[in-house]
Amino acid sequence: MIPVQRIERDWLWAKVEYDGSRFLGFQTQSHGPTVQDELERAVQEVTGLKTRVIGAGRTDRGVHARGQMIAFQSGWKHDLSDLHRALNAVLAADVAIVEMGYAPEGFHPRFSPARRVYRYTLLNQAWRSPLARRLAWHVPPPLNLGRMAEASRCLVGTHDFATFGRAPEAGGRPGSSATVRTVAGAEWHEERPFLVFEIEANAFLFRMVRSIVGMLVWVGSGRMSPRAFEAMLEARDRSQVKQIAPAHGLCLVNVDYVMREGVVQ
Amino acid sequence: MIPVQRIERDWLWAKVEYDGSRFLGFQTQSHGPTVQDELERAVQEVTGLKTRVIGAGRTDRGVHARGQMIAFQSGWKHDLSDLHRALNAVLAADVAIVEMGYAPEGFHPRFSPARRVYRYTLLNQAWRSPLARRLAWHVPPPLNLGRMAEASRCLVGTHDFATFGRAPEAGGRPGSSATVRTVAGAEWHEERPFLVFEIEANAFLFRMVRSIVGMLVWVGSGRMSPRAFEAMLEARDRSQVKQIAPAHGLCLVNVDYVMREGVVQ
Repeated sequence: MIPVQRIERDWLWAKVEYDGSRFLGFQTQSHGPTVQDELERAVQEVTGLKTRVIGAGRTDRGVHARGQMIAFQSGWKHDLSDLHRALNAVLAADVAIVEMGYAPEGFHPRFSPARRVYRYTLLNQAWRSPLARRLAWHVPPPLNLGRMAEASRCLVGTHDFATFGRAPEAGGRPGSSATVRTVAGAEWHEERPFLVFEIEANAFLFRMVRSIVGMLVWVGSGRMSPRAFEAMLEARDRSQVKQIAPAHGLCLVNVDYVMREGVVQ
Repeated sequence: MIPVQRIERDWLWAKVEYDGSRFLGFQTQSHGPTVQDELERAVQEVTGLKTRVIGAGRTDRGVHARGQMIAFQSGWKHDLSDLHRALNAVLAADVAIVEMGYAPEGFHPRFSPARRVYRYTLLNQAWRSPLARRLAWHVPPPLNLGRMAEASRCLVGTHDFATFGRAPEAGGRPGSSATVRTVAGAEWHEERPFLVFEIEANAFLFRMVRSIVGMLVWVGSGRMSPRAFEAMLEARDRSQVKQIAPAHGLCLVNVDYVMREGVVQ
């Protein structure tokens, strides 16, 4: 998961799971609770150190994560497993640390080269489900999975994804404002009554997965052809996105870092 | 699902799913919200008729259902699918009607002979899961599934389950106060990281599944042998139950009615 390189004992990485329902997103906002705030509060409560937590992806309001990656500085002198347990004990019920370790030198959760995987879950049955309502978008049948899979294939490769999202406005490195991204995979599978979309890329634009899924549902319901979907991508025109899938169906499932000196799972 | 017999157009059955998190249980209480209250409110809002909703099982506070069966009287003169849609439109997000139909003559969701299936879900991994926290009880490893499965086998058959629960105090028919029940199946399976227990019986005592699971976790963690679990069942002594599994891992998944004149799925 994290590359083996020279380790800086002062920086830690951690894999974080959260239920995004009550948060305004990952990144600190002036007007309400965020996952970053909750993590910083917990680190300060346990270590006594006021620290800044950096995340691999700034998930939007209401988006979940099973594998958000973070890094933070800590003065922790004891066993890491004790810190892990202590953080989980003080974190709110909707945030938890899954795994943690020492960060290799030069590691940055946002800027180190990575493969990010998002999953979007549709509930494809006639009636809404109270038990699945927080984790899946309810889209009643009919929905043609074959057409959606066919349309998704055009996403794979290096493309200008301007149609499906905008680049981060601030905090980016030189060049990050471009809307070109490389998608390594974009596939649907069935877990009845759910339809699950997984998309892997080096990085994502704001709202990119939700815009793609919103329009793939148009393809699945027959309102747009797979060919028209491909033409939309080629048009690089955000005004063509007529439906953005809601946040609660989206989950950041994994961030794998790819660094020159090898990767440890 | 519901037997074909002479149909009384005035009574309807419905299969109901709910997230039990915020409810005091299925049955109306004086001191807070219940699923029955929510269903009665919705029926009254749609039909204008104040009615009593009867459930197949009085699930406890915090227990979920995918297949609770209810019956109620309605003056509905139109298409049933319209009533179904209208009820789901006015019901709270944590309750939904899955399916509905006309009740056969003499049908009673609690007293008609039935096979009830409950499912209990354990999350068996080291760290708690924010995304699974409402639907599974977090029990960290080690937990020996083979020992739990072995202990569960003694539950199958007709036994006096007095060790694991008490009979309903009120509202029962003659004979229902006994603690003898017939368990048709009691099995564990893995859906990693979850361990799932399914138990089918003609009826259940109060707290029966949660008491059984609480003590099976003792067996799985090595604090009790499968043989000692069997001896507990035979002892018919409620004071031997040292751990009751929490409500949020429990779900009433199905109620199948078995009546003489045949069953329709």
